[in-house]
Amino acid sequence: MKKLKNDLFIRACKRKKTDRTPIWMMRQAGRYLPEYRAVRAKADFITMCKTPELAAEVTIQPVDILDVDAAIIFSDILVVPMAMGMDLEMKESVGPVFHKPIRNEADASSLKSIDPFKDLKYVLDAVTLTKKNLDNRVPLIGFSGSPWTLLAYMVEGKGSKNFSEVKKLIYSQPGIAHKLLEKISEVIAEYLSAKIECGCDAIQIFDTWGGILPQKDFYEFSLNYVEKIISSIKRKQEPVIFFAKGVNYKPKKLAKCGADVIGFDWTADLSQLRNEIGNKTALQGNLDPNVLYSSHEIIARRAKAVLKSFGKGNGHIFNLGHGILPDVPPENAKFLVDYVKKESIKYHG
Amino acid sequence: MKKLKNDLFIRACKRKKTDRTPIWMMRQAGRYLPEYRAVRAKADFITMCKTPELAAEVTIQPVDILDVDAAIIFSDILVVPMAMGMDLEMKESVGPVFHKPIRNEADASSLKSIDPFKDLKYVLDAVTLTKKNLDNRVPLIGFSGSPWTLLAYMVEGKGSKNFSEVKKLIYSQPGIAHKLLEKISEVIAEYLSAKIECGCDAIQIFDTWGGILPQKDFYEFSLNYVEKIISSIKRKQEPVIFFAKGVNYKPKKLAKCGADVIGFDWTADLSQLRNEIGNKTALQGNLDPNVLYSSHEIIARRAKAVLKSFGKGNGHIFNLGHGILPDVPPENAKFLVDYVKKESIKYHG
Repeated sequence: MKKLKNDLFIRACKRKKTDRTPIWMMRQAGRYLPEYRAVRAKADFITMCKTPELAAEVTIQPVDILDVDAAIIFSDILVVPMAMGMDLEMKESVGPVFHKPIRNEADASSLKSIDPFKDLKYVLDAVTLTKKNLDNRVPLIGFSGSPWTLLAYMVEGKGSKNFSEVKKLIYSQPGIAHKLLEKISEVIAEYLSAKIECGCDAIQIFDTWGGILPQKDFYEFSLNYVEKIISSIKRKQEPVIFFAKGVNYKPKKLAKCGADVIGFDWTADLSQLRNEIGNKTALQGNLDPNVLYSSHEIIARRAKAVLKSFGKGNGHIFNLGHGILPDVPPENAKFLVDYVKKESIKYHG
Repeated sequence: MKKLKNDLFIRACKRKKTDRTPIWMMRQAGRYLPEYRAVRAKADFITMCKTPELAAEVTIQPVDILDVDAAIIFSDILVVPMAMGMDLEMKESVGPVFHKPIRNEADASSLKSIDPFKDLKYVLDAVTLTKKNLDNRVPLIGFSGSPWTLLAYMVEGKGSKNFSEVKKLIYSQPGIAHKLLEKISEVIAEYLSAKIECGCDAIQIFDTWGGILPQKDFYEFSLNYVEKIISSIKRKQEPVIFFAKGVNYKPKKLAKCGADVIGFDWTADLSQLRNEIGNKTALQGNLDPNVLYSSHEIIARRAKAVLKSFGKGNGHIFNLGHGILPDVPPENAKFLVDYVKKESIKYHG
């Protein structure tokens, strides 16, 4: 069925031999591309998510334009709380807003379980269409937010500086928090299984807000549920990537979560992480997205430093340490992709 | 001259024997106190900084109200760029704004060196007055932002999500960045020496934005200059605390910066840090400030966990992992102080 023309990314996830390091970029289907902005001019963000043709189109753009080694389905982590019954608005220059955030047990019990094939059909249709249009040129990654990261948004209702509301919940009413996380985890596991069933070749779980927690709370309220999800996703050989922004401590513990790949942000030292994790998982990362504002010379120097930091051998997927920024010149992103493809040959074979 | 009635904080900074753990809180002279808000109602923030009587009054409030073991002079890290010639506005609900941020070599050379006794006389007068009014009940901490953190504000001009401007500077024009950091470091060293001369019993350097840098850049653009400052501050026995928010990696390297105490945010594991740092420095921290929204029972449980994490012995200064939040109930802060004073006896002697 799935015969990928370029399977470097999948092979690297499995720490198999490749002749160079694969590269893709988080949020690569995004506003920095004029081709994306042209689509976005015709439809708002949520409409793009809900329209398979548009989602498929922007998903494939970075493959066509930048020649990255993987596509990631265009969508948003907040489609899950939407499907569970929450009302989301994407406010211009504010970001996502839930007008009725979860603040108590009653709010929590109003959330419904979902059938992804019904409640998130539009994402699955986008996956199916993208797979068809991609024609197996590169693998397609499906994704979800982690339960903790979704809970943070659902409880805060919007972006937050101190995350006081969700922390009040876990510190003062851990029982309710765990019930919610359990429910969200079940939804995510079904959702990701459905994505794989519809053709996704790999899965990434984004724990954008894992790094705001004390370590013990990260294990209890985030990693714990990520482990459960990973162990219950129905998959064959499809690799799972876990990326917890700001969590660079105790990498051995992270590496035991069941993911094939652990992603790290730009504050991590890949060399140290690789030493500690050994060959338990592959590593993904970790160029500071801000480097893409620099000259080609500096992009090359800093990309080289990332390659060197991981060192020789297999099991590295080159990526940014976080999403590509919306006003980065596309030619710089293209330069990075070309550079990594060429330069990384030295670290293989 | 300086005979402190309560010298627990100073002794703990030096890892000397104490019969309990001292406690103070970052931003303890702040908006959560009704007594602070009463002063603030009469004067804007910058006027408070510039009026020694007001600064001294709010500095002493938490000593009177909460009975903390140290006072920290009420001021702002941005008085330094102001003294160097930058025009600062404190915008309600936006935060500090520099209307003419540093963006090029010409901007950079417009910054002047300072004589703290002239250009920051109002801070030093506040220190002198506070020392007099405090009557040596507890030590008085003086502080500064780190050169990197000040540079970040000076270049961004305001709070930032991605810090793209200051990163563009260090990635693309490291020469200009280093010249600026050198200049700022000299100013800070003189400023902190003057604070000690005027009676400060200890110094804290805040590197609020150290954690946004890749590790190598943190050493090159931040820690490097902190080391220089610490080695050139004119001091006798006055301890120096270095707090770099979000920097919990390579603690041994941090501990070599010359500071007597390293402060950590709530994502750090004090037990692990103490193991790695050994008795090179004391440790300060690290309760999540959000815990203060919880019930007394939960505050006690979480404070106990911090004490337990450091473990038995000397060299721990209890603090929050970041500034106290503006809407925390003061009685919760008071409860924390009382609890730590009592509970920590078990970890001493």
